[in-house]
Amino acid sequence: MHGKYAERAKLTRHSETREILKVTEHPEVISFAGGLPAAELFPVEELRIACDAVLKTDGAASLQYSTTEGYLPLRNEIVKRMDTIGIKANPQQTLITSGSQQAIDLLGKLFLDEGDTIICESPTYLAAINSFKVYKANFVEVEMDEDGMLMEALEEKLQKNSKAKFIYTVPDFQNPTGRTLKLERRKRMVELASQYDCLIIEDNPYGAVRFSGTPLPPVKHFDMDGRVIYLSTFSKIFAPGLRLGWICADNIIIEKLVAFKQIADLHSDSFSQRITAKYLELYDIENHIKKIRVVYKERCKTMLESIDRFFPDNISYSKPEGGLFIWVELPTFMDSSKIFMECMQHDVAIVPGISFFPNSTKTNTLRLNYSNTNSETIIEGIKRIGEVLNRELQKYNRINKVI
Amino acid sequence: MHGKYAERAKLTRHSETREILKVTEHPEVISFAGGLPAAELFPVEELRIACDAVLKTDGAASLQYSTTEGYLPLRNEIVKRMDTIGIKANPQQTLITSGSQQAIDLLGKLFLDEGDTIICESPTYLAAINSFKVYKANFVEVEMDEDGMLMEALEEKLQKNSKAKFIYTVPDFQNPTGRTLKLERRKRMVELASQYDCLIIEDNPYGAVRFSGTPLPPVKHFDMDGRVIYLSTFSKIFAPGLRLGWICADNIIIEKLVAFKQIADLHSDSFSQRITAKYLELYDIENHIKKIRVVYKERCKTMLESIDRFFPDNISYSKPEGGLFIWVELPTFMDSSKIFMECMQHDVAIVPGISFFPNSTKTNTLRLNYSNTNSETIIEGIKRIGEVLNRELQKYNRINKVI
Repeated sequence: MHGKYAERAKLTRHSETREILKVTEHPEVISFAGGLPAAELFPVEELRIACDAVLKTDGAASLQYSTTEGYLPLRNEIVKRMDTIGIKANPQQTLITSGSQQAIDLLGKLFLDEGDTIICESPTYLAAINSFKVYKANFVEVEMDEDGMLMEALEEKLQKNSKAKFIYTVPDFQNPTGRTLKLERRKRMVELASQYDCLIIEDNPYGAVRFSGTPLPPVKHFDMDGRVIYLSTFSKIFAPGLRLGWICADNIIIEKLVAFKQIADLHSDSFSQRITAKYLELYDIENHIKKIRVVYKERCKTMLESIDRFFPDNISYSKPEGGLFIWVELPTFMDSSKIFMECMQHDVAIVPGISFFPNSTKTNTLRLNYSNTNSETIIEGIKRIGEVLNRELQKYNRINKVI
Repeated sequence: MHGKYAERAKLTRHSETREILKVTEHPEVISFAGGLPAAELFPVEELRIACDAVLKTDGAASLQYSTTEGYLPLRNEIVKRMDTIGIKANPQQTLITSGSQQAIDLLGKLFLDEGDTIICESPTYLAAINSFKVYKANFVEVEMDEDGMLMEALEEKLQKNSKAKFIYTVPDFQNPTGRTLKLERRKRMVELASQYDCLIIEDNPYGAVRFSGTPLPPVKHFDMDGRVIYLSTFSKIFAPGLRLGWICADNIIIEKLVAFKQIADLHSDSFSQRITAKYLELYDIENHIKKIRVVYKERCKTMLESIDRFFPDNISYSKPEGGLFIWVELPTFMDSSKIFMECMQHDVAIVPGISFFPNSTKTNTLRLNYSNTNSETIIEGIKRIGEVLNRELQKYNRINKVI
């Protein structure tokens, strides 16, 4: 019976991150593995009031089937939000998706034939890799530095891969590195995409969660010919459990995506769309986002200071200005999958970096999440990882001395 | 730029039904076109209480990311519900999906390679056709009578298509025909699937909405070797806006589907899962379903009586014992797409049947929905359609007389 699976069934893998999440549900484990927002900040009471209001005034409509494109007042709010960061669009250029993840999957479905090439940062977002792999795409990774993807390297890859379908980029506080693409490179990326006739998928879940430095306009801001497809979500600024993201793109692309979304789930949850729109009507979400920024800034700072204090010297790490993640580069002789296992022995969870490289090239990196752990626990967790790393280093030094 | 679409982008089409729904949003149009439940029956106040309770006790968790498989208490409730209709399963054999539509799409993704064969009723559910077509499957249609798919015809097709991946069936009050597969045929379908080593996808959104006749066990009840994959949904018994369906299948199939669901949307809406589980905990949904049955029975009866009264004699139609739809067969010289256009001129909407035939073979059928229109309006709408049909008939008779 099980010989009946499609070819593509062989290409799926459980997301390592999500498998790890299951282990880390044990309360004694300190988890830096997930990518969860701080649940204690969710605006629970405000949402209760929004639910009440929606059910009182639009009860039936909020529970009925609705249009695939999404609830218009919510799309209007999204257009307004995007306007404040430099994206001009109309509601017809937006599509509500069941989280950003669905946006990624729909775009794979719309654009990728077997053997197509995607250009992406090295490393890049794990669940985008998993999603695009099912469409049998090839990944061309472009090196990064602390300021994001290197534009010379990008141009070289575009030259070599003239039929690449799109550049997939997470320019703000990237998952997994926490790095941000600097301004000149944003402009340059659009120029290069135009020159080599390539699309750009700009995935921006974290942009609003900037807690230091100067905000940058999105890549889409520099888009002159509908070449940039912009994705974002309410998951990091409101509540990920509601599964609401969006795509902003050229009308014709949106129309095509609507056809695929009909097949995927008819439409996103009507009730969640209405209560989110009602929340945005009743409250100023910017005040809420400010609270998130304060907490994440503190947690990030604590984690960076703890790394500085407890980790060995020959380890480098990113210093994010926002988002949820810090990226750690270990000495090349260290295998972070082994470090991960060691850490789990001491009830602290990380994500080995290898999963974030589509072509699985680098084994000495790891990702740390700080958004979902309080400062005290961050210090204790980083201390434990530091002990594991120091032991590993001593072992290596001992062996090399003997040799 | 638009030359970049994948091959499969050519295979999508906007669902005709959904396009029509847009037109019928004008209040003056009487719509029998959609498949909407009666919104006035939604348990709005009970849901408000459930929202309150969830946000008070599990506020943060209900808004946070959650597991791909679904909220365990909801899966437990589903297992209990299935047990009452003769399906024995454990929660690990269930997966919560974003409506039944996502279940259909995930199954297509898991099982269908280009050129694979699906066996289905003729006609069958439109959105399943659209979904499976994207995976480049071929459809083999099996004739039906008033008691569902004909088993002799099914065996013949299985013989001719020995590599068919699965039989897709809607055995209870089928969409679009309203017909129900009779008991002996349910057993026989499982025997045949076993004999020819074929899977069965049993799509059962309407089973609980039976308003006359004797309830029948689902096809899955007769499954001895994990061959039947069972789909159902809360859309027709609770609220479709919440986008909650489920798949019940063999553990190994569920595991594979979980990997695809991770890619599709990580998980279904956490909040909607929790409030639905809370509703099921606080209230007896059976009492609610009883109310739905009473209303739909009355509307179906009114529509059948009106058809009998206003339609010409040489037209046949199904007499459903549940569900949402009546299927009408016109004389073969009538083209229901033309009838549809005529009806729209008189502000009444139907769905031409051709969309429900995967290989677009039959042009003289149409689908009528009765669940979302009150009795008075049903009478007026059917009267208008009757006038269109009678004029069409007279025209035909006049021409034939002249000839």
